[in-house]
Amino acid sequence: METIKIKKMIDVIPEGTSTLVCGLPGIGNVGRITVDYMIDKLKMEKVLEIYSSHFPAQVFVDREGKAHLNRNTLFYKQISKSKSLFVFTGDFQGNTPEGQYELSWKLLEIAREMNVNIIYTLGGYGVGKLVETPRILGAFTDSSLKQNLIKNGVKFPEGEPGGGIVGSNGLIVGLAYKFFRIQAACLMGETSGYFPDPKAALEILKTLSKLVGFRVSLMDLEERCKNLSELTEKMQSDMIDKEKKDDLGYFQ
Amino acid sequence: METIKIKKMIDVIPEGTSTLVCGLPGIGNVGRITVDYMIDKLKMEKVLEIYSSHFPAQVFVDREGKAHLNRNTLFYKQISKSKSLFVFTGDFQGNTPEGQYELSWKLLEIAREMNVNIIYTLGGYGVGKLVETPRILGAFTDSSLKQNLIKNGVKFPEGEPGGGIVGSNGLIVGLAYKFFRIQAACLMGETSGYFPDPKAALEILKTLSKLVGFRVSLMDLEERCKNLSELTEKMQSDMIDKEKKDDLGYFQ
Amino acid sequence: METIKIKKMIDVIPEGTSTLVCGLPGIGNVGRITVDYMIDKLKMEKVLEIYSSHFPAQVFVDREGKAHLNRNTLFYKQISKSKSLFVFTGDFQGNTPEGQYELSWKLLEIAREMNVNIIYTLGGYGVGKLVETPRILGAFTDSSLKQNLIKNGVKFPEGEPGGGIVGSNGLIVGLAYKFFRIQAACLMGETSGYFPDPKAALEILKTLSKLVGFRVSLMDLEERCKNLSELTEKMQSDMIDKEKKDDLGYFQ
Amino acid sequence: METIKIKKMIDVIPEGTSTLVCGLPGIGNVGRITVDYMIDKLKMEKVLEIYSSHFPAQVFVDREGKAHLNRNTLFYKQISKSKSLFVFTGDFQGNTPEGQYELSWKLLEIAREMNVNIIYTLGGYGVGKLVETPRILGAFTDSSLKQNLIKNGVKFPEGEPGGGIVGSNGLIVGLAYKFFRIQAACLMGETSGYFPDPKAALEILKTLSKLVGFRVSLMDLEERCKNLSELTEKMQSDMIDKEKKDDLGYFQ
Repeated sequence: METIKIKKMIDVIPEGTSTLVCGLPGIGNVGRITVDYMIDKLKMEKVLEIYSSHFPAQVFVDREGKAHLNRNTLFYKQISKSKSLFVFTGDFQGNTPEGQYELSWKLLEIAREMNVNIIYTLGGYGVGKLVETPRILGAFTDSSLKQNLIKNGVKFPEGEPGGGIVGSNGLIVGLAYKFFRIQAACLMGETSGYFPDPKAALEILKTLSKLVGFRVSLMDLEERCKNLSELTEKMQSDMIDKEKKDDLGYFQ
Repeated sequence: METIKIKKMIDVIPEGTSTLVCGLPGIGNVGRITVDYMIDKLKMEKVLEIYSSHFPAQVFVDREGKAHLNRNTLFYKQISKSKSLFVFTGDFQGNTPEGQYELSWKLLEIAREMNVNIIYTLGGYGVGKLVETPRILGAFTDSSLKQNLIKNGVKFPEGEPGGGIVGSNGLIVGLAYKFFRIQAACLMGETSGYFPDPKAALEILKTLSKLVGFRVSLMDLEERCKNLSELTEKMQSDMIDKEKKDDLGYFQ
Repeated sequence: METIKIKKMIDVIPEGTSTLVCGLPGIGNVGRITVDYMIDKLKMEKVLEIYSSHFPAQVFVDREGKAHLNRNTLFYKQISKSKSLFVFTGDFQGNTPEGQYELSWKLLEIAREMNVNIIYTLGGYGVGKLVETPRILGAFTDSSLKQNLIKNGVKFPEGEPGGGIVGSNGLIVGLAYKFFRIQAACLMGETSGYFPDPKAALEILKTLSKLVGFRVSLMDLEERCKNLSELTEKMQSDMIDKEKKDDLGYFQ
Repeated sequence: METIKIKKMIDVIPEGTSTLVCGLPGIGNVGRITVDYMIDKLKMEKVLEIYSSHFPAQVFVDREGKAHLNRNTLFYKQISKSKSLFVFTGDFQGNTPEGQYELSWKLLEIAREMNVNIIYTLGGYGVGKLVETPRILGAFTDSSLKQNLIKNGVKFPEGEPGGGIVGSNGLIVGLAYKFFRIQAACLMGETSGYFPDPKAALEILKTLSKLVGFRVSLMDLEERCKNLSELTEKMQSDMIDKEKKDDLGYFQ
């Protein structure tokens, strides 16, 4: 078995310039929530699946009893005459550094075939406390991107993110420009990191829709944010009642 | 050395449709007990052995002093004019996810050569307590299999198995239909998981014999179940005597 | 870099039948002590070295300041008109199961080139207590060897060694007959396993010299055994004096 | 993706004999401090970058927000009509033994292309206490180097370094002479190992400049050493004041 296998669903001939958005599982699941929402709301089409021995050796069983092999999936949508959009998501990143390099490289080969000229990888930036309005932090590989990112609300605070970007989000950006001459940036939504975070996803989606140039209703995601806010507020006030503010540090 | 080496014993030209049953070591050793019993009772023939650097680097030494390299083995039996049966078992699953993928893939290449059109992987579903009559849970990759599985007593309770199917049992099923267009299902016998469990094996064997269409005397396996039941009952009553029911939770 | 690299020192055209003896590091370092003694006393010649990325990534620095890359080495001696002897030893076994398989396989390819028709791998059998006269336990892959092993003092006590043979000693034996049709046996000298054990090495050497048909003075090895016996006796009597026999279990 | 990828910046045709100096991260970061200082002061040119899936799967983000893929880099300077100098440094050594072997091998292939005839790998020799004037310990692979090393102040104290040389510093030296017939030595600067150590780097640089034959102002490095000495002296006297010498063992 080759370590990576591609299963193609449809043939795509994208028109105009192509953008690739990557949202794999990670901190606060921010990237994945964002792209799952886009795939759903934009009614994107499945283009291909990637299977790999770099993923965990297991299948997921759904409510019907159907077994699903771990995979990453590429979706597509022609968003205007001159613009096509690809979205990449999946169950897992590779098990090992070697696997993550190989999978990122394979995705970039596919991106090149699809005439992708810019890639955004989406992730969370864990800060360990609840965040009222999450900032979107950025990283890029070619300085010419920076002004446009700032204009669309992406922040570059000095010293953040301190430890670099770990995993596929970093690798795809790092390899894209260096070896494929594809522009790339990573957008990181500030998040506590304690739970899947729709608020960071919402802020990323606002920024991304302006950067890429697509429109999507934000209503359902805003609803999820509101529900989460009510829940966390209730938890906090319960804790205040119960502990007279003693142990609140954890959530603030 | 290639990572996998095949040692062929006999040439097999299966007649009619072929079924492959896989029982590798796992939870409660349910799969392996089932297929070892089938191999013995059906007097199946050894077709080939698989050796691999994905298995632990050791040999097993038998009572005579003979050293045996770790291996997986394929057995064969023509069970009727129109039906042939293959059974796959072994000492170990692969050491790593990569190894498990590669070994599962190799088995599926062999299955295709042998004209296998359906595969059952057998395993245990660990529930952490003694089970009176083990249920057989199922997972499949093509929905057309489901009704036949239900008709033969396989259950699909919602939310079980929660965490998916780990290891070869899951991979073989997941890869079979996706890449080889071979139908596949996993049958999981409910088991405490505390010891090798003939009761779960017995229930799987009853279901499997109906699904595949072979006949095998269940007497010896029923005997082992009876012996085990007597033993666990004795242990329980000893514990009751000794501890006045204090610590019984573990076995119930 | 290939994962294994061979460095040939001399060309060898062995006459008559060839025997290969393997003594890599392991329990009580029994195998390595035995073959190091043979190489020294028989004045064996270095034939080739094996370097590999499966060995730890480090060099050993000797007293002069010279750095030595980790390696395995093959030695040779024509012990009679009709018999040649090869001895294999080294600093390490492979880091991983995959590495151990690959290195064992490579050695067997070399053995085949050298017309080796029988292999003995030497190791320790750890019993966790001091042993007066170590037994030599055996394992083989072809039953035709057993009688000759017994005749030369090798024991096959039922149920020993219980857990099989781990690492190269097992793999070389397991692979030799199965894939190269070279006869092979493993000789395990009983040892406490607490320290490098010349007594087990001495017993193995006595047995081995009869099996292979070479003569070697045992004097120096007997001397080392005597020194060790005196040391352990002194330690035991010191302990008895000091502890009035309270804690002796560990050494007996 | 190949596991190693080379990105060439300029074509270099070195004149005369070439020396390669390697300073990768390690104990006290001694090697890296030394070569970073050389690259800066000698205004060396970037020749090529090595990217590899054997490095951690992450990018480093600089103060501007630019993402940098982990890499090793080769620098070059023609230091006289008859002498050219190469310096190799980087963010990481390989993640695994296999990766370290492969990366060291690749560097040696590059060194051969560049007509390198001697290699010095630089590292720290951790002694776990502050050192007034660090010794430079050496290891070589060909005895003909030893006298010249001693003449230039390199020490070969018996029994040091006890455990050999772990990682790339050892491998490059070990592989260089054995497989490429390139002379090689490792220079290890004595260091506490508690922090990045410019004093060990300074001593190495003094020795190295004589061995290789280049001139470099030591002023800035001496300044750093002075600052560090003042800092550690202050820390020690603070501790003496505070603890009346009770806990001083750690720093002496």
